[in-house]
Amino acid sequence: MKSCEKRIYLNNAATSWPKAPGVAEAIAEAVRQLPGAANRGGINDFDVFEEVRKELAWVMGVSWPEQIALGCNSTWGLNEGIFGFPLEAGSVVLTTSSEHNAVLRPLYRLEQQGVRVVYLRADAFGRVQPEAWEKALKENAPKLCILNHASNVTGAVNDARMLTALAKQYGSAVLLDVSQTLGWIPMELEQWGVDMAAFTGHKYLLGPQGTGGLYVRPGLSLKPYLLGGTGVLSDLRDMPEEMPLHLEAGTGNEPSYHGLLAALRWSKEHPADKKRMDDLLNLIKTGLTEAGCRVVLPEGPVTPVVSFAVPGMSNADVGDILTESYDIICRVGLHCAPEIMEDIGMPRGTVRLSLSRFTTKEELEVVIEAVRAMAEDISS
Amino acid sequence: MKSCEKRIYLNNAATSWPKAPGVAEAIAEAVRQLPGAANRGGINDFDVFEEVRKELAWVMGVSWPEQIALGCNSTWGLNEGIFGFPLEAGSVVLTTSSEHNAVLRPLYRLEQQGVRVVYLRADAFGRVQPEAWEKALKENAPKLCILNHASNVTGAVNDARMLTALAKQYGSAVLLDVSQTLGWIPMELEQWGVDMAAFTGHKYLLGPQGTGGLYVRPGLSLKPYLLGGTGVLSDLRDMPEEMPLHLEAGTGNEPSYHGLLAALRWSKEHPADKKRMDDLLNLIKTGLTEAGCRVVLPEGPVTPVVSFAVPGMSNADVGDILTESYDIICRVGLHCAPEIMEDIGMPRGTVRLSLSRFTTKEELEVVIEAVRAMAEDISS
Repeated sequence: MKSCEKRIYLNNAATSWPKAPGVAEAIAEAVRQLPGAANRGGINDFDVFEEVRKELAWVMGVSWPEQIALGCNSTWGLNEGIFGFPLEAGSVVLTTSSEHNAVLRPLYRLEQQGVRVVYLRADAFGRVQPEAWEKALKENAPKLCILNHASNVTGAVNDARMLTALAKQYGSAVLLDVSQTLGWIPMELEQWGVDMAAFTGHKYLLGPQGTGGLYVRPGLSLKPYLLGGTGVLSDLRDMPEEMPLHLEAGTGNEPSYHGLLAALRWSKEHPADKKRMDDLLNLIKTGLTEAGCRVVLPEGPVTPVVSFAVPGMSNADVGDILTESYDIICRVGLHCAPEIMEDIGMPRGTVRLSLSRFTTKEELEVVIEAVRAMAEDISS
Repeated sequence: MKSCEKRIYLNNAATSWPKAPGVAEAIAEAVRQLPGAANRGGINDFDVFEEVRKELAWVMGVSWPEQIALGCNSTWGLNEGIFGFPLEAGSVVLTTSSEHNAVLRPLYRLEQQGVRVVYLRADAFGRVQPEAWEKALKENAPKLCILNHASNVTGAVNDARMLTALAKQYGSAVLLDVSQTLGWIPMELEQWGVDMAAFTGHKYLLGPQGTGGLYVRPGLSLKPYLLGGTGVLSDLRDMPEEMPLHLEAGTGNEPSYHGLLAALRWSKEHPADKKRMDDLLNLIKTGLTEAGCRVVLPEGPVTPVVSFAVPGMSNADVGDILTESYDIICRVGLHCAPEIMEDIGMPRGTVRLSLSRFTTKEELEVVIEAVRAMAEDISS
């Protein structure tokens, strides 16, 4: 691994860096200590999974920690939710063009099995319009709606409360993908009536990779997708009925969840300064625009993500120059969200900068200067 | 977490402890350093997943590191192999009664879809007899055989080379579950002709939880089971065809794989002293037998696992006393392998002690003394 002395890390929507203080130490300590997996003969006096569930329930705004199944990432959570929900040939699923491939690819598979999937186009910023959503609900009578809480490409946050309410009104269940929002956008999933929410621990929760899962509201029983040992009730041919065991097959990632617990506790004690983040976002968006870039500028609530392109340059070239000449880590391309590119009019993808609470004004000024130099170089 | 000063840890078949020297530090360092995920805008000069694949290929005895898909545990690997292998209603799968629920529960699901599953009874030690295996192959013409390399209950190691050769002779593919053997039993999967092998990093490889996966021989294309983003080739509706990307959906657990890499490299430089391990196994088996226990004593190759029962006592009571009075960590019950209990004549499960290379003679003497005291207490 390279030293990270001078690096400017702006790829937090892929995985956050740095992690919350104490995460590395908590994981290392958990590896050194005796394993504690409660179901598999470990020490029972501290169940890290239970503690994490409590903290997550608080962040998600739900009263049922045991309804939060913990796995290895959001992709797993989405697969459990999508393939586990009772759908059959002829069932309709409504989703949007702003979704990640962790939603789209499972849905393409369901289409092969006769499920009808309606892909609602988002607006030019990747946001779902309530009128269009309601029209699609009315016309298609979906059994399940799958909605990105925020686009990982543009940062535009959907009005999950309103869109969920509309879906419920038309009799549909809602699976919300909060991978890009949990830890950043306040949420009240219980109050909103969300049926399922897939999340990750390693983005805005500032925890380690290898953590993430699925919240399922009480009363909704999924058919478990990944099957295996549960440590207890081993004589059952199916996964046990009660949550979270119902969805948790195999040995959990105990050390990484110690890391996530440290991150959750740290974040609770250190709320992010939203005013400062707004200022930083304005700074980078204005700077890129003034440098002559095509910048995607959603109005309203956003995550700290900026997608742009430098006219006359390929995204790959922009990324290479930023990284190689300026030690700036960003991400270029389709960002695992191929469909949204048509909505935002950037079919070849974007250069994406994603900030975190640890991003500084000085770092963004370096980025703006770098892009400005590139743009000037091209136009001269 | 409790202090582990005096604890005697004998639950290595669930997860090894202690981990190899350097594992905790490698993970912590990876969390502190910039993320390097090659496909998602990270730093490309060191790809931990690639390095792990190389080391795993060496341990498995295969020439194709890229054919090793890395996920979060063996359960994931088994699900990918079982649900991804081309089976249809009417196809036959041959498996054994010694399998773990990570094999059995997926197979019960396949049975619901019309696949016919033949469960071959193992012998009284959980070992598969070649004659019975060949007879089952002949009578059932399976398309896929799923075989435990070693029982996690009795430690009996199957002759995977011979059983695979027989299966191939009868035209069947073989999925070998090496969760209990990789890092302990030398293997040559390529030479043996094994088609798929599911493994974990956190047992005898001495790495952290959250690591494991599936080896797939070149030329065998599975239908990916867990679907999602791959960081590249995002415009494909399916997972990319090439391995390992074909099976690797979602963000990988980079820090934990740094830990596994440290473990693999350490183990390579420090081969276990097999003579010493044999002596320790003999010591504990003899000691338990002399204390009056019912001990499962397989002949031939074994992993360092001992299953036993104390006459007149429930397994749960034995486990509780060992833990509470003697600080000995073991595991009691069905060990996620419900079917083998009938074979070994212990329908209520066993008390299982599983050693590692770090287990000492002194520790085992404490165990023997504890069990002897219990047995005497009961018979007096």
